[in-house]
Amino acid sequence: MLVNIIAVDAMGGDHGPSVTVPAALYSLQQYADLGLILVGDQEVLRHHLTEHQASETVRLQIHHASQQVEMDESPATALRGKKDSSMRVAINLVKQGTAKACVSAGNTGALMATAKFVLKTLPGIDRPAIIYSMPTMQENTCVRLLDLGANVDSQAEHLLHFAIMGSILASAVDGIKNPTVGLLNIGKEGIKGNEQVKQAGQLFSENKAINYIGYVEGDDIYKGIVDVVVCDGFVGNVVLKVTEGMAKLIIHYMRNAFNRNWLTRLSGVAALHVLKSFARRIDPAHYNGASLIGLEGMVIKSHGGANKMAFANAIQEARLEARTDIPQLIRARVSELLQKSAMGI
Amino acid sequence: MLVNIIAVDAMGGDHGPSVTVPAALYSLQQYADLGLILVGDQEVLRHHLTEHQASETVRLQIHHASQQVEMDESPATALRGKKDSSMRVAINLVKQGTAKACVSAGNTGALMATAKFVLKTLPGIDRPAIIYSMPTMQENTCVRLLDLGANVDSQAEHLLHFAIMGSILASAVDGIKNPTVGLLNIGKEGIKGNEQVKQAGQLFSENKAINYIGYVEGDDIYKGIVDVVVCDGFVGNVVLKVTEGMAKLIIHYMRNAFNRNWLTRLSGVAALHVLKSFARRIDPAHYNGASLIGLEGMVIKSHGGANKMAFANAIQEARLEARTDIPQLIRARVSELLQKSAMGI
Repeated sequence: MLVNIIAVDAMGGDHGPSVTVPAALYSLQQYADLGLILVGDQEVLRHHLTEHQASETVRLQIHHASQQVEMDESPATALRGKKDSSMRVAINLVKQGTAKACVSAGNTGALMATAKFVLKTLPGIDRPAIIYSMPTMQENTCVRLLDLGANVDSQAEHLLHFAIMGSILASAVDGIKNPTVGLLNIGKEGIKGNEQVKQAGQLFSENKAINYIGYVEGDDIYKGIVDVVVCDGFVGNVVLKVTEGMAKLIIHYMRNAFNRNWLTRLSGVAALHVLKSFARRIDPAHYNGASLIGLEGMVIKSHGGANKMAFANAIQEARLEARTDIPQLIRARVSELLQKSAMGI
Repeated sequence: MLVNIIAVDAMGGDHGPSVTVPAALYSLQQYADLGLILVGDQEVLRHHLTEHQASETVRLQIHHASQQVEMDESPATALRGKKDSSMRVAINLVKQGTAKACVSAGNTGALMATAKFVLKTLPGIDRPAIIYSMPTMQENTCVRLLDLGANVDSQAEHLLHFAIMGSILASAVDGIKNPTVGLLNIGKEGIKGNEQVKQAGQLFSENKAINYIGYVEGDDIYKGIVDVVVCDGFVGNVVLKVTEGMAKLIIHYMRNAFNRNWLTRLSGVAALHVLKSFARRIDPAHYNGASLIGLEGMVIKSHGGANKMAFANAIQEARLEARTDIPQLIRARVSELLQKSAMGI
């Protein structure tokens, strides 16, 4: 049964349909419960399907959109001038209930602005956030980090909302019963940190809706000791980019080191399989699919430079989230908290 | 000729003299122009020297200090109660001019507080910063990142001071003629970032004392495209810890991947040399030695968990900085800038 219908912004990203179409076909092979709506120029998309000996089916539909948002386009221009963009139409399909979630590799600013405009934020949530799942040292355990750049100069209350939303996502998607929440800081002691984090630490400690374990530091993110890590969008975006940069630096070093002489080249050939599996687990281009959270609908952001397998990972993330109604869970939890605080509990 | 005399807090760090003493002996073998003063309990230090078949010489002196600062001790307690600590006495030797710089693996908070109290900040500099050199993709090219946690909630003017001090260090120690400076942000465009960074960007553009190239993102740090990267201490500390955490995660993955079966173990043996050389270049435990900058004297902070080779790297960093009088260069540049601004230039 086609329970999970996902709208795909097929024109978005650095590579457009040459990545999104094969990723969609691959995903349909993998998951029998998945249905995809490819949004974009129907001529172009049909051509790409034909190239892969595929055509429209009940599980793979094309929804025409005449425009596309450029990777360097400003959110304001995209919002005003591109009302029939593949990105906007994919989000509209979520708004109308035709799709349960949408996936786009388009530019983050335009995606966030359009999603906020079309879907609106959930009641009680001022600011949506971007949440991403990162690998850890523990086998099959990831950590969810938010916010990754939807907001800067967040107030302590916003960080609390991020903590609540992150917990709900970790619980619903990763199946963790009572996810632990850490607040990113530059030391474990109470006196450490900037004003924003100290105030947020106080709020987190007092709030019973989250399983708060205290401050965590940058290197704790990858240890697998905490399920959700909360920070301001400026810091979170830097963490994401530094992680990406380090992964690239290391792959670069490895390649150079193994290319040094015939002996190292030989050991490189032997180690190739290991290196590839390592790159798949670490490189954010493979470990792909961030969620826009706090909106009346589910939107998944893929890395702009994603290749076929990476974009398929973002579709898989959308499928996992589509199985539960995350916005509804957040709405219920926040309304419960607001009632409690109105009653002075 | 013994031009570079460095005071070593021999009791500091997780391992104390069992690391600092062999690192000191190794460094003396490496650099003929180096003289070291080991500061700490003289009985203990003599015992460690004897263990390594070494003794005091004109190039290796012991300076007794009866106390030591614990790794978890608060800066205030260290400052008030430990006036004869190895850390404090090592800094005193710099103040008196007996040593050109000092090195400590002791706790960062106590080191910064003590150094600020004993040495004082340079005229015109409100806040000293911590600056660290990180590896990049370009062979033999590093990037200097500051501040790494000496300050949080910095104002735009403080970030400008960091930029000026970082440029002077990169120029004097790394020999770069007109070092490029980037401001860490979450996008390249002017509209991106938080208030602090936008204001600093404006100040940086207007200042002729630095070779400002604009905003850089987290992944640009490791590309070797910029010599100095400036950020607030909160963000910088997170960057440093994330870098550390990623290095550990990757080494962990590699070990697991190569241990999977006899074939991967075999390729692991072949690749061992490559992996070790890689770890040496990436792991901050090897790439060691951050500088406290903006003070009337040079203080180098080693990683607390540094091993012999890592601590020797911190001594080498102190030696490089001791060859030029960094505080004097900063004093001159800042006074020149203050005069210009008083004259409305």
